[in-house]
Amino acid sequence: MFREKIKVLDCTIRDGGLINNHDFDIRFVREVYKALSLAGVDYMEIGYKNSKKLFSPKDFGRWKFCDEEDIKKVTDGIESKTKISCMVDVDRVDVDDIVPRKDSPVAMMRVASYVKDIDKAIYLVNHFADKGYETTVNIMAISRALDNELTECLQQLELECKAGVIYIVDSFGALYQETTEFLIKKAKSILKSKEVGIHAHNNQQLAFSNTIEAIIHDANYVDATVYGLGRAAGNCPLELVLGFLKNPKFDIRPVLDLISKEFIPLREKMEWGYIIPYAITGILDEHPRAAIALRSSDKKENYREFYDSLVGEVEE
Amino acid sequence: MFREKIKVLDCTIRDGGLINNHDFDIRFVREVYKALSLAGVDYMEIGYKNSKKLFSPKDFGRWKFCDEEDIKKVTDGIESKTKISCMVDVDRVDVDDIVPRKDSPVAMMRVASYVKDIDKAIYLVNHFADKGYETTVNIMAISRALDNELTECLQQLELECKAGVIYIVDSFGALYQETTEFLIKKAKSILKSKEVGIHAHNNQQLAFSNTIEAIIHDANYVDATVYGLGRAAGNCPLELVLGFLKNPKFDIRPVLDLISKEFIPLREKMEWGYIIPYAITGILDEHPRAAIALRSSDKKENYREFYDSLVGEVEE
Repeated sequence: MFREKIKVLDCTIRDGGLINNHDFDIRFVREVYKALSLAGVDYMEIGYKNSKKLFSPKDFGRWKFCDEEDIKKVTDGIESKTKISCMVDVDRVDVDDIVPRKDSPVAMMRVASYVKDIDKAIYLVNHFADKGYETTVNIMAISRALDNELTECLQQLELECKAGVIYIVDSFGALYQETTEFLIKKAKSILKSKEVGIHAHNNQQLAFSNTIEAIIHDANYVDATVYGLGRAAGNCPLELVLGFLKNPKFDIRPVLDLISKEFIPLREKMEWGYIIPYAITGILDEHPRAAIALRSSDKKENYREFYDSLVGEVEE
Repeated sequence: MFREKIKVLDCTIRDGGLINNHDFDIRFVREVYKALSLAGVDYMEIGYKNSKKLFSPKDFGRWKFCDEEDIKKVTDGIESKTKISCMVDVDRVDVDDIVPRKDSPVAMMRVASYVKDIDKAIYLVNHFADKGYETTVNIMAISRALDNELTECLQQLELECKAGVIYIVDSFGALYQETTEFLIKKAKSILKSKEVGIHAHNNQQLAFSNTIEAIIHDANYVDATVYGLGRAAGNCPLELVLGFLKNPKFDIRPVLDLISKEFIPLREKMEWGYIIPYAITGILDEHPRAAIALRSSDKKENYREFYDSLVGEVEE
């Protein structure tokens, strides 16, 4: 029997945008939106709302800013129940850029934050909630969070924050299922008035299983991307999530078509997925940035040297 | 704290041989053996012991037969604690081909069997055990086994079979972690005098997580392959298992080197891994043979049509 409360959020364009400076063209994004709408996916995250005072539109694609008119070019004329979501990072958004919900095609605003920045995240979320948006806080780098600080962070979110959903984000792809279980149970035990979500990275091929693990322990919001597209090792593959969930409203077929027609060709031009340097940073619970740099160098397949360069940095 | 009883069996050459008719050359297999020996891997499964009366050596590579002199060409001159394993399928082996353990470089004989063939498997295992080998029974297609029949099978193995280890084999890559937990607990509850093992396929990117799940529930024998090489979606990646296990005897570095030097080039010539038609057969709990056929056809990326061809076969 399916659990109706489970919502699937596709963040293909948002997380995939981290590979190509958010420069997907309108046609491609429309194809994704069409397929997700047919598949019954609940949300589509289309990009970031970054301040143009901080980042120049000359240097980045449109999905780093997500202007309302660009979003409408994607959604106009397509019948859909899929809601649009945008993400903001703490310290990178100008709150005055965010128009009221009633004037925007965006339904949900998600704020990504480290534990240490949670006060700023709460300020942003409450501001967006007051403007009429559904809101979430996505706690990044959860595998590095100290337990006492995470406890305080979750307690503060429960008491002070209007977000409906708090996500556990395994930024480094470092979690195994026992730790996922621990973190989801911990979050559920503190966040009595909110839903819990999971955003998993696939460095160790555990994004899908950690997502299942989170669902088992009552997370109801799950992030995924088409064919696992996303920075570095990528994310939990949407097609596997749809194959797993039993809610008859979901249909895997439009996503299969989308992969055939758009993502197999895309994979020739963009790199993501199970690649050993990303597996190594996952195993070592490190940010993938060193592995991303390696993949752009002429040492891209020198795995042992890369491994030793990371484990050699011993700190007392 | 690590669990010393956990043994890692690499079956790269054996399972990978299902892709290339068991035709890896001696140089390549020596490189694998060298790396596994340096990495501290407990067993290396090198191929099958098939009867030459049933299969002609003209049609297959040497690792379909695993003659002792071929194995020695791989192992001679390499310092190693890694034991050699061979697999046999029920009805495909001539027991008279198997020399006594003391005359062979092979340490372990593994018998692959469906639940329905378990009597034949027990006969073979007991024969090999009497010849001095370590032995296992690998119960295939476990996702299709009916619970009452599996119970009887496990009870019979406990009472009548000399195998030291009984493996749960997720041939179709269909198990999620809850079912893995159920099956491993079930096996452990009946097989009081034996160890339990796990052999997982990676159709849904769950081979590694199901292997961890099995370890959590006290499976002590785990199969893996270098870079996940194996038929169709492949297997649990050895490098991830070594990254996960805490026993200091294991060293991931030689395996990283092996992937850099041998498996990245090999991947250009052989196909395995996360490929949508194999994900589909995993989701649907089907043998991958239809997907393997699809990948050799000009419809290899027609995922929706393939999906519909499988779900359309409704039986009353």
